[in-house]
Amino acid sequence: MLKHIEASIITIGDELLIGQVVDTNSSWIATELNNIGVHVKRRVAVGDVKQEIWKALDAEANQTDVILITGGLGPTADDITKPLLCEYFGGKLITNAEVEANIRHIFEVLIKKPLTERNLKQAEVPDCCTVLPNARGTAPGMLFEKEGKIFISMPGVPHEMKGIMTKSVLPLLQQRFELPVIIHKTLVTAGVSESVLADKLVEFEAGLPEGATLAYLPNFSMVRLRLTFIGYHAEDTAALAEEKFKELQSLVKEHMVSDVDQPVQQTVAKLLLERKATMATAESCTGGYIAHLLTSIPGSSAFYYGSVVAYDNSVKQNLLSVDPQTLREHGAVSRETVEEMVDGILKQTNVDYAIAVSGIMGPGGGTEEKPAGTVWIGVGSREQKFATQMFFRFDRKRNIELTAVAALNELRKFILEQKA
Amino acid sequence: MLKHIEASIITIGDELLIGQVVDTNSSWIATELNNIGVHVKRRVAVGDVKQEIWKALDAEANQTDVILITGGLGPTADDITKPLLCEYFGGKLITNAEVEANIRHIFEVLIKKPLTERNLKQAEVPDCCTVLPNARGTAPGMLFEKEGKIFISMPGVPHEMKGIMTKSVLPLLQQRFELPVIIHKTLVTAGVSESVLADKLVEFEAGLPEGATLAYLPNFSMVRLRLTFIGYHAEDTAALAEEKFKELQSLVKEHMVSDVDQPVQQTVAKLLLERKATMATAESCTGGYIAHLLTSIPGSSAFYYGSVVAYDNSVKQNLLSVDPQTLREHGAVSRETVEEMVDGILKQTNVDYAIAVSGIMGPGGGTEEKPAGTVWIGVGSREQKFATQMFFRFDRKRNIELTAVAALNELRKFILEQKA
Repeated sequence: MLKHIEASIITIGDELLIGQVVDTNSSWIATELNNIGVHVKRRVAVGDVKQEIWKALDAEANQTDVILITGGLGPTADDITKPLLCEYFGGKLITNAEVEANIRHIFEVLIKKPLTERNLKQAEVPDCCTVLPNARGTAPGMLFEKEGKIFISMPGVPHEMKGIMTKSVLPLLQQRFELPVIIHKTLVTAGVSESVLADKLVEFEAGLPEGATLAYLPNFSMVRLRLTFIGYHAEDTAALAEEKFKELQSLVKEHMVSDVDQPVQQTVAKLLLERKATMATAESCTGGYIAHLLTSIPGSSAFYYGSVVAYDNSVKQNLLSVDPQTLREHGAVSRETVEEMVDGILKQTNVDYAIAVSGIMGPGGGTEEKPAGTVWIGVGSREQKFATQMFFRFDRKRNIELTAVAALNELRKFILEQKA
Repeated sequence: MLKHIEASIITIGDELLIGQVVDTNSSWIATELNNIGVHVKRRVAVGDVKQEIWKALDAEANQTDVILITGGLGPTADDITKPLLCEYFGGKLITNAEVEANIRHIFEVLIKKPLTERNLKQAEVPDCCTVLPNARGTAPGMLFEKEGKIFISMPGVPHEMKGIMTKSVLPLLQQRFELPVIIHKTLVTAGVSESVLADKLVEFEAGLPEGATLAYLPNFSMVRLRLTFIGYHAEDTAALAEEKFKELQSLVKEHMVSDVDQPVQQTVAKLLLERKATMATAESCTGGYIAHLLTSIPGSSAFYYGSVVAYDNSVKQNLLSVDPQTLREHGAVSRETVEEMVDGILKQTNVDYAIAVSGIMGPGGGTEEKPAGTVWIGVGSREQKFATQMFFRFDRKRNIELTAVAALNELRKFILEQKA
């Protein structure tokens, strides 16, 4: 029987404890470890305080096999992690020639800036560690071993940490341990609540074999269903996952948006690419966020032509040919306006499909008749148009996100309803 | 002498350990606690595993005074937190009439959906807790006390948790403890590296009094400098913070973008509002992200008119009047193109200032002459234009973010250079 390898992630930095920074490193590391079959058991964040870091190292080593540490390795004076690691693992700081060469290369060749003493000091590493090179920055990764446990320290800058993880840490863990197979299968539903889904899936859940679990992950107006399988035979586990995932799909068929864990813009992108169709957007209240979601997809230029962000009414008139009378009579947040916006953007860009949105995202701008959170969404092609009103009741940021996701979902449904 | 109150944040959920969700709750909670003078000492994430949650409760209660817990309270079967809390604090589950009334109100009046048994079960709470009402959802907050320590459990849905924190938890902690004064003063610099700043500030740092610390927070192409002061006299601490912050400002004057901790779009917004000026954007490679940053600011319609997201070259020609010959001769990623985009958007929207960007964000699309990461940024008014080339070398997401921040910073400099 293979050993079940467990990991802890320790992130170091006062900025994490006063909330100045959102910790995105931990979730990225967790995803990568899960993908190779290492189970993340705990994540801990501590400040730049020697005693706290020391205690965290002791506590995590006591509970897991691999301890990944990020942060605390920058060139400035608020960093205390490196000397601490040196003391904790019983070594002394020495200059590493390879690391020094990398630092000199970065300053002299890549960024062409003068090298300071402080930068050069980053070439010092504890003599008891294995250096994991950092091609993207000056602070190297460091691997330590103590009482059978592996400790890996990495800088907190996300793209530097990711480079070290991908290049060194993941291959090293795969080489070192015989890891179990972990398979996640996720599907996305829309228009149905978590509790209605759960009621529908009572029997399915009860019938899942050992090592398999179902989780409900609500996100915006969608609920993702994630099946997780842990096994020690790649083929058997994959076959079981496939079978159960098919069963799950058939049970929630009418609510399923996607059978892969992808945001709705990816689902729309796939539909358009399959149809060799193009689209554009006309955005008032979402202010470019729908365009941003679509253009964040690599290769989106193949189906996405662009957007008119018509924040001011003059832009709605001049660039989307919305009739001033429509705006006067029905207001910017109305069925009539979004329908004219759909027509306007289709004409201006000559694409196959268009989305138009106009609403009041808050906190200000609402009226009794149209409170903050009121949104009109229009979707259409040259042949047909559809508009619908929605209400969101959250803060500005979330209202923008929900509107964008809802609008993309309306377009998804609209495309599927078209004759092939 | 007042007691220094320390807190731990425990977040519960398998989704945090497999990386499917980024934990934004912790940083929000940490900010709010810091603002009222509660020091967050540790943050811990554990899975939906009874034994792990139990151990985390023990371990954190051992180290801090207040333990805030989020997650694990949804209506579905993967939730085990509530029965565990009941057992941990020695109570039994009973239906709470107030909570039940709230659940019925939400289903019957607000969302008008049928109420399931599962939803109603959320009205059950341990009889040893004080209920903290959740106006935004069905799962209530719960406060427990054990051996002088305070434990507060809240749902993981961010806007529900925030409602409970604001309405109940923060006032309650302020009432319960006499809290110290914590003052953070942050300024933003651009165009200078962390290590150059650190060298400049060696003496300043060494001269800081006890209870005061300086931190360097690099973010995108900017470095934020954060001074933190902890004291027990509101006035004295504020006066000291003011004095030291002024000293810091004068030391980094030439690099300072803002003397408050705000993103560059807020600084641009402030400049425009002060001048009663307006702006618009023409975005190719950033695909609406600059528009999104600006329109995320409440009230941005006072200065921001809109954007043409000209992803496809046809949109650059039709909506921004970029000359097809310019595109043929110089390419879409060129000084000439962004200058014509600046002219085009100024003409189309009649605003005072404009930003135009065009670049290759990767991973595809690069050539030897113009590798992925090559960007042209143009800024201008009716009187004057300025264009500059930049190179970024990260992934698509980060390149988009860096380009947007750099473009906004170019506009900031451009506005400041104009005669008043």
